[in-house]
Amino acid sequence: MMQLHTCLWNDVDAFSFCENDFLAIKAHFPDLVIKIHPNVEAFLSQAQLADFLLTWDFEEVWYDACSSLKIILTPAAGDGWVFPDPHNKIKLFHGTFHGQMLAESLLSAMLFMNHNMPAMIRNHQAKKWDRNHQGSSRLLGNQHVLIVGLGKIGSSCASLIQQTGAEVIGIRRNPGRDPDGNIDVRSLDELDGLLPWADHVVLLLPGAPDTDRLMNTDRLALMKTGSYIYNFGRGNSLATIDLLKSLPHLGGAFLDVTDEEPLHPDSPLWDSDKVMITPHSSCIYDEYKSLFINEVIDHLKQYLS
Amino acid sequence: MMQLHTCLWNDVDAFSFCENDFLAIKAHFPDLVIKIHPNVEAFLSQAQLADFLLTWDFEEVWYDACSSLKIILTPAAGDGWVFPDPHNKIKLFHGTFHGQMLAESLLSAMLFMNHNMPAMIRNHQAKKWDRNHQGSSRLLGNQHVLIVGLGKIGSSCASLIQQTGAEVIGIRRNPGRDPDGNIDVRSLDELDGLLPWADHVVLLLPGAPDTDRLMNTDRLALMKTGSYIYNFGRGNSLATIDLLKSLPHLGGAFLDVTDEEPLHPDSPLWDSDKVMITPHSSCIYDEYKSLFINEVIDHLKQYLS
Repeated sequence: MMQLHTCLWNDVDAFSFCENDFLAIKAHFPDLVIKIHPNVEAFLSQAQLADFLLTWDFEEVWYDACSSLKIILTPAAGDGWVFPDPHNKIKLFHGTFHGQMLAESLLSAMLFMNHNMPAMIRNHQAKKWDRNHQGSSRLLGNQHVLIVGLGKIGSSCASLIQQTGAEVIGIRRNPGRDPDGNIDVRSLDELDGLLPWADHVVLLLPGAPDTDRLMNTDRLALMKTGSYIYNFGRGNSLATIDLLKSLPHLGGAFLDVTDEEPLHPDSPLWDSDKVMITPHSSCIYDEYKSLFINEVIDHLKQYLS
Repeated sequence: MMQLHTCLWNDVDAFSFCENDFLAIKAHFPDLVIKIHPNVEAFLSQAQLADFLLTWDFEEVWYDACSSLKIILTPAAGDGWVFPDPHNKIKLFHGTFHGQMLAESLLSAMLFMNHNMPAMIRNHQAKKWDRNHQGSSRLLGNQHVLIVGLGKIGSSCASLIQQTGAEVIGIRRNPGRDPDGNIDVRSLDELDGLLPWADHVVLLLPGAPDTDRLMNTDRLALMKTGSYIYNFGRGNSLATIDLLKSLPHLGGAFLDVTDEEPLHPDSPLWDSDKVMITPHSSCIYDEYKSLFINEVIDHLKQYLS
């Protein structure tokens, strides 16, 4: 009998899996043995029994203990927590289910900035009925959106944003074809030329040395007066110091990731009226765990049906 | 030469028209005389010269002074400020351009509530990086939305919300056919049966005696635990006292209109963590005036081309 082992506890409740979360797997594969480990030591003591592993992290040296392991599935969309097998025998699959969640979070952020919601909330807190805070609000459907880092997730975002009527252009290092075929995709060379065109600039870049401060002060200066910037990728692409320098001519920034996480209470980012920060929560949804489990079931079908 | 007179000043900057706003009319109809009145007295002193009138308000007795008047165009979508001609000779046209603006404002409000933004903002203000405020956030695309009062504006809202994947049902006194043909429209008799189905209940009802407290405590009690209510129609359909009684079992309320406007600073609505209030601003956009002017040009073409 094959064994599925799991190490999926997490500080974030929405990302911490418990027994009930695995019932759908059990229903699909009644003969599969499912072992839920409370910590990595418990897993490592039985690692040689695992055929399949669901985990948030994995270190290089652990591979030696996993003689039966065929695949590792991790919910995270990006690299960083699971070290790939140096012998390239055990396959690693990252979650690919984040698109719809990120798309709704990003659309929410764009409408939030367009409607000047930080000012509306201060207004509400002051119990004021003031109808002159939103006079310069613009319709997203009439605007231009530039997505920098258009992978699979960016494509989901672009598709949803296009439904409002907005014009969307995506930037990718290797433009090739858009995975969904209906987004206008350009190369990184065209970024500087497109920045003055956009009303909203969205960073969805992976964390890597070559994306460090990709959105630097020169590029921020190219953005249109009053336009908005969003970082929903990784914090390294937009440095706090660069953003603060550039804020005066921008409409504002909505940051779901920052160059330091968790963001320290002393960061001047918290104090700016033009900045809204969410704590890397763009994929924190009630649906997160079931979306991952559905993907796990699809993978297991290749071994167990 | 025909004359267009305008009385379109307003306390809300976004609704107050000035000379520049009429340039597009002048460009289309160079021979048309355009008179911009600073107040109603100025208009009334020349009322007999007006062939067309753009106005925010009009009283019954003024019709006697308007011997040449053919049509009155008012930006407001709803009744209340322009009294129709008792002799039914001078036609009155309300603005019909509000759909896209209201749709984006409503979508913004729904995503705002789904993402627990009031808590996220308090979190931001406290400079806290807490990732456990959004764990019960749900994807709008997986939810059910009930729009109570599905006219032309409601149809625009439904069309946009459907793009997320959400299921939308509209309620109308006389169901007939949906103006756009792709929304499931039901009669008012079905309202009580559908309230427990909806994750989001949107009121878009006109202000009239027969909509007074239409969403009463009995109906609020039928709403699903944790679901959200929105009022983007007129304040009379949802009384503050009824909402406050029902809030404990609801997820929250987003009110763009209230039963008293402007809402008094002493209203207990301001104090609830579950309520977000905007000051009847769902159509306050930079685009408002040009959308109305485009509609005016279309009307004038029937007389002047």
